[in-house]
Amino acid sequence: MLKIVLLGGGNVAHHLFAQFSKIPEIELIQWYNRSVSAIQKFDSIIPVTNKLENLKQADVYIIAVSDTAIHEISSSLPFKDQLVVHTSGNTDLKVIDPKNRAGVFYPLQSFSKEKQIHWNEIPLLLEATNEKDLEKLQFLAKSMTDKVYLINSKQRSSIHLTAVFVNNFVNHLYSIGTDLSEQAQIPFDIFIPLIKQTTKSLETTPSKASQTGPAIRGDKSTIESHLDQLKDPLHKEIYKSITRSIINTHGREKL
Amino acid sequence: MLKIVLLGGGNVAHHLFAQFSKIPEIELIQWYNRSVSAIQKFDSIIPVTNKLENLKQADVYIIAVSDTAIHEISSSLPFKDQLVVHTSGNTDLKVIDPKNRAGVFYPLQSFSKEKQIHWNEIPLLLEATNEKDLEKLQFLAKSMTDKVYLINSKQRSSIHLTAVFVNNFVNHLYSIGTDLSEQAQIPFDIFIPLIKQTTKSLETTPSKASQTGPAIRGDKSTIESHLDQLKDPLHKEIYKSITRSIINTHGREKL
Repeated sequence: MLKIVLLGGGNVAHHLFAQFSKIPEIELIQWYNRSVSAIQKFDSIIPVTNKLENLKQADVYIIAVSDTAIHEISSSLPFKDQLVVHTSGNTDLKVIDPKNRAGVFYPLQSFSKEKQIHWNEIPLLLEATNEKDLEKLQFLAKSMTDKVYLINSKQRSSIHLTAVFVNNFVNHLYSIGTDLSEQAQIPFDIFIPLIKQTTKSLETTPSKASQTGPAIRGDKSTIESHLDQLKDPLHKEIYKSITRSIINTHGREKL
Repeated sequence: MLKIVLLGGGNVAHHLFAQFSKIPEIELIQWYNRSVSAIQKFDSIIPVTNKLENLKQADVYIIAVSDTAIHEISSSLPFKDQLVVHTSGNTDLKVIDPKNRAGVFYPLQSFSKEKQIHWNEIPLLLEATNEKDLEKLQFLAKSMTDKVYLINSKQRSSIHLTAVFVNNFVNHLYSIGTDLSEQAQIPFDIFIPLIKQTTKSLETTPSKASQTGPAIRGDKSTIESHLDQLKDPLHKEIYKSITRSIINTHGREKL
């Protein structure tokens, strides 16, 4: 049985709370947030606090707050030599104040209040300063998913950057697509089969090999007609920068 | 029974040939390509030719060639007053020489030799100059899929542009993601659950509402650290242009 204290009141903390409450191997003993009102409604299920000096003795302290607040909160902890981990993709292990033993417990997923989270499908990326702590984090992670990876801070930072391209940026392209199809009075649903095929083919074919479209064909007149159609200068910029990159990757330099 | 002559020897033509051969309601009576060698191996199943003057009498002539070749091939046809359709997303109906009755039979999908095509999942976008021809195309399309749409040339051009954003560009972002993860010695598979969640949530939540990431959070230090990590100037350009567009869409103007 692993005793956990959760610190933070945002999306990640809420999703962790919901999951921790379901796992028999772990015991969530306390939930801290600077503003206690954000978590007050759970106080019948779990002791909540907004005072760091009241934190209970636990096996792992999980700090799920914004990247810039990790260092401050870890420095303000009123104890030392405990295992304190953060949940951030782009934050070095060393940001945690060295008076405690540092670790990382990074779920590679995009969290929002609306989305239901299926933890068993989510990779958990772990790091710790010592072997025994890593074992604790592995025990915790394996109670949530089979996809557990030991990843150092440098690699994790690359993973976070990659996730921005394949998730945040892709989502924004879908958002632009939604705007364009609304302008043309086309239901966006019409594109779902196309989108699904692209995602599905990722599992069998490298995306470089399945690239299609006007840029890779060197189809200058289609590219020009598309740029003419785009009204938003930022959409034009995106169109041009990705087109240049496709051409550069696939070598249609004459275009 | 609808008699069809297929013109062209590329990916779309090959996938149409494979499907037409399976449908009882239609009879593919001939396959033309300028270079007959590309389709010669099918001559035991279907008469092939490289001579337009030898084309047989059919109900529909389907021109599945590159966009720039549609006009030329339609002008060179040795007959008139027949239904001649092209399969292009970004090409006006009027590109077909007016000596014949024009139509469009555009499958909204990305075709490559490697990919298996499930026609029943693919929207078919139809257009024709007259009602009777449109009925013929509808008969043909409905023998292949339930997703049949009547779409004019202007809307079709918007759809093609949107498809470039949500398919070709998204695929290139996956390709960049693959490069970045290879550089960090991370298996790209680790990102598949994240990618799948984004695609899945499209069906329930507008992508604008599910945007996450450093740009929408106004997280300047993460954005700077990502730009530092990117070595390829074109990747930097893409990062900047999409980031600017996310900020513009979601109103973090102070960034």
